[in-house]
Amino acid sequence: MNLHVIRNLIGKILVLVGLLMLIPLITALIYVEGIKNIISYLIPMGLLISIGALLGYVKPAKDSRMGAREGFVIVSISWILMSLFGCLPFLISGYVDDFFTAFFEITSGFTTTGASALTADELSNMLNNGGHSLLMWRSFSHWIGGMGILVFILAILESKDGSAVHILRAESPGPQVGKIVSKMKLSSRILYLIYIILTLLEIGILNLCHIWDSEMTFFDSLIISFGTAGTGGFATTTLSVGLYAPCSQYVVATFMIIFGVNFSIYYWLIIKNFKDIIHNEELRNYLIVVIAAITVITIQIYNLYSSFEESFRHAYFQVASIISTTGYSTTDYSSWPVLSLIIIVFLMFCGACAGSTAGGMKQSRMLILSKYAQSKVRMMISPRRVEVIRLDGKPLDNKVIDSTVAFFILYLVVLTFSALLISIWNPQMSNADATPLTMFTASLSCISNIGPGLGAVGPAGGFSDFSWFSKLVLTFEMIAGRLELYPILILLSKSTWKKST
Amino acid sequence: MNLHVIRNLIGKILVLVGLLMLIPLITALIYVEGIKNIISYLIPMGLLISIGALLGYVKPAKDSRMGAREGFVIVSISWILMSLFGCLPFLISGYVDDFFTAFFEITSGFTTTGASALTADELSNMLNNGGHSLLMWRSFSHWIGGMGILVFILAILESKDGSAVHILRAESPGPQVGKIVSKMKLSSRILYLIYIILTLLEIGILNLCHIWDSEMTFFDSLIISFGTAGTGGFATTTLSVGLYAPCSQYVVATFMIIFGVNFSIYYWLIIKNFKDIIHNEELRNYLIVVIAAITVITIQIYNLYSSFEESFRHAYFQVASIISTTGYSTTDYSSWPVLSLIIIVFLMFCGACAGSTAGGMKQSRMLILSKYAQSKVRMMISPRRVEVIRLDGKPLDNKVIDSTVAFFILYLVVLTFSALLISIWNPQMSNADATPLTMFTASLSCISNIGPGLGAVGPAGGFSDFSWFSKLVLTFEMIAGRLELYPILILLSKSTWKKST
Repeated sequence: MNLHVIRNLIGKILVLVGLLMLIPLITALIYVEGIKNIISYLIPMGLLISIGALLGYVKPAKDSRMGAREGFVIVSISWILMSLFGCLPFLISGYVDDFFTAFFEITSGFTTTGASALTADELSNMLNNGGHSLLMWRSFSHWIGGMGILVFILAILESKDGSAVHILRAESPGPQVGKIVSKMKLSSRILYLIYIILTLLEIGILNLCHIWDSEMTFFDSLIISFGTAGTGGFATTTLSVGLYAPCSQYVVATFMIIFGVNFSIYYWLIIKNFKDIIHNEELRNYLIVVIAAITVITIQIYNLYSSFEESFRHAYFQVASIISTTGYSTTDYSSWPVLSLIIIVFLMFCGACAGSTAGGMKQSRMLILSKYAQSKVRMMISPRRVEVIRLDGKPLDNKVIDSTVAFFILYLVVLTFSALLISIWNPQMSNADATPLTMFTASLSCISNIGPGLGAVGPAGGFSDFSWFSKLVLTFEMIAGRLELYPILILLSKSTWKKST
Repeated sequence: MNLHVIRNLIGKILVLVGLLMLIPLITALIYVEGIKNIISYLIPMGLLISIGALLGYVKPAKDSRMGAREGFVIVSISWILMSLFGCLPFLISGYVDDFFTAFFEITSGFTTTGASALTADELSNMLNNGGHSLLMWRSFSHWIGGMGILVFILAILESKDGSAVHILRAESPGPQVGKIVSKMKLSSRILYLIYIILTLLEIGILNLCHIWDSEMTFFDSLIISFGTAGTGGFATTTLSVGLYAPCSQYVVATFMIIFGVNFSIYYWLIIKNFKDIIHNEELRNYLIVVIAAITVITIQIYNLYSSFEESFRHAYFQVASIISTTGYSTTDYSSWPVLSLIIIVFLMFCGACAGSTAGGMKQSRMLILSKYAQSKVRMMISPRRVEVIRLDGKPLDNKVIDSTVAFFILYLVVLTFSALLISIWNPQMSNADATPLTMFTASLSCISNIGPGLGAVGPAGGFSDFSWFSKLVLTFEMIAGRLELYPILILLSKSTWKKST
């Protein structure tokens, strides 16, 4: 393993994270927050930039070759380190007094999960007692994590394309790395440009909504837009997007759907490549699932709300939020009929499109798995038949099918094992709260980077009652889910650290 | 497709089922039950034997060749038909007045599920108002379904070995058909002999228990032994095995574990082939899972019961019952702590060994999946590495791995899809009962042929509140699970019924 290149790249990332803390620092200055808040950013910034510079710039690596293993190790260590440093402002400022809560919270930010371990009191304390900058940092971390910080490094730094692909593969979601253009660096820049434009668009439209919606201030529009763009889900109050007027809810729901689409589609839209868009099976599947889920749920919850519009809006918003793995809510869907709840759990599992900022299994993987299963049934009937699985009209490589299947199994293993671990010990949780539904959906919500689940972790609840041990397990599950398992599994695997091979 | 051979074999099975109804008929005569009960067996027996003889014996098939497709079709149609005819005694005798309930009940019997759609009143009416023969028929169907009725046909009829393998493959559980001896017919006979000896052994020991346990009458010992041998789970009251004294509970628990072991192990034991037993990874894995689950649950429920012995006994019994997919219970485990419940759901999914009478995914499949996942992680670290997956020291054929993975995916698809379907419409079920946990574990319990689940279908509840539509879905899920999916999926597949291949 080439430890030099690992050390160097991690150093650069730490410097970048330090610089990104300027955003909450500026927020603190604008809101004239206390000196304690200012210091709570200056200390980690100082640490990040000095340690990062030491690792990344003082002694450049002679040998910049990087393999798959180095890529995985860099990505997983970076994400753990940035969460460890990123939680310091919460602790130093005194708004959060428990390390595991702060670590959970910022990891939930970076991984775009949006699950909160803060109590309702802690959250309202931030909003009402001079902690705007911390809310900003929490939500801005969604925006950073959404596209991936290492993809960002690729977009701005010089790097040989051959090595960069390992980073992109390790950090980007989906079964196949779709290169938009042949140059990796150019690809990353185009992706980030689309990301920035869409985010600005949402901020703009939400500010327009302010005309009808007094709650949607400029600060709130930033928080909500960062949360939507990264498909994160942190808001300013426990009411989530239910705080705002229906017009804002429709805007947010639509942008959640938009950020769940593979960003390549937008690139094709720009270069007018409509043929590829029309033939994109994943996009078609995604939209069909969204429309079907909204239809069924609207019918099911029709008599729970005062009008058709309200039922439709809640169905639309919740489906958009869950399938895009954002996790905002406008109503406590825990009380919906059981069919709707099972649909929600299913959407939690699937997630949106590969190449978006969403988490979960991804629609393309679900498509591949469903085609694989169908072909196996056909082969049982006619054993000598030769089956070719196609996606978007092209035959799929057996390696892609194989790794999709393996990913699915590993996903279920991590999901189940984490649900078991977090069930062991939670002294603060009542028996009525500690149900299999709570544990299973908490684990599913974290691995799919959604935020809320069902039961005690439903939209009206939260993760604050879990023990420090359960919080730590869920924190690692969020990182594992965001990086699509392999980087973390490989980091924890013995054979990665063997001298030979 | 060779329709002649299908017609012929189905005819023979119908005659056999008709003859097997002699057992409840004799019971009705011994208990001097009313003439209505006698008629309720005579009518279906007449129908089964006359229709069966017409199909099976009048015009023998000229061409007795049989392929995989014929095997699957014969097995699935037979199971549906025997359940349709098998439910008639419940309806004609008047103890059950709803067709879907009776169909569910006897399918639950044949598939060795043991889930009951009878209300507590209907069940106690059978026991206390002259319906012993119906209880006998219900439990005897477990014993018939446990080993498989077509395997029985193979054991008694002349058949070419080449065709018989397709039947055995379609009806026997597990990823690989392990031929005990090279002759298929001899294998079936040995299996049935072991099955009969073990059942008689349990009946004998339970009658010894009668010395300390007044509830364990000869009738009860038959009911409970048939339920244990087939890993079914029907009992005489809603108390299940909780009705009997601790000594009987220990005996039943031990036999549940025994019937969950691959029957080849007992054959090896007889021929003193200890080497293969020691090297059998599935057996080792099964015993490790059993011991680990009992240990964790005993610790967790220690303070819920009055003594260590009681906690251990309930943990031992419930683990044995769930992993062997029998479904008997001695306590309402729904109130256990959440970790124990998640372990139970996990055991429900796994099931016991291939080649036993148990349902579920089977330990050997879980082993193959876990080895497959581990090898994929290793291959991510070293992409050029060649990985060979071994079971019992021998390298596994890629086809076996591939079909195990496909089976796992199909299992989850059927499980999830059925959970969705049974959530749609249950007007009799309260909102407190219709939870995702109820629907999911009801579906899991039926596909794994267990019996009880959690929530409203927990050991203290039942399936009587489901609508006729949900009962029908669950009925098909039980058959699909018992036949390990492919036969039913192939029966429902369009391409099976095409003229050309």
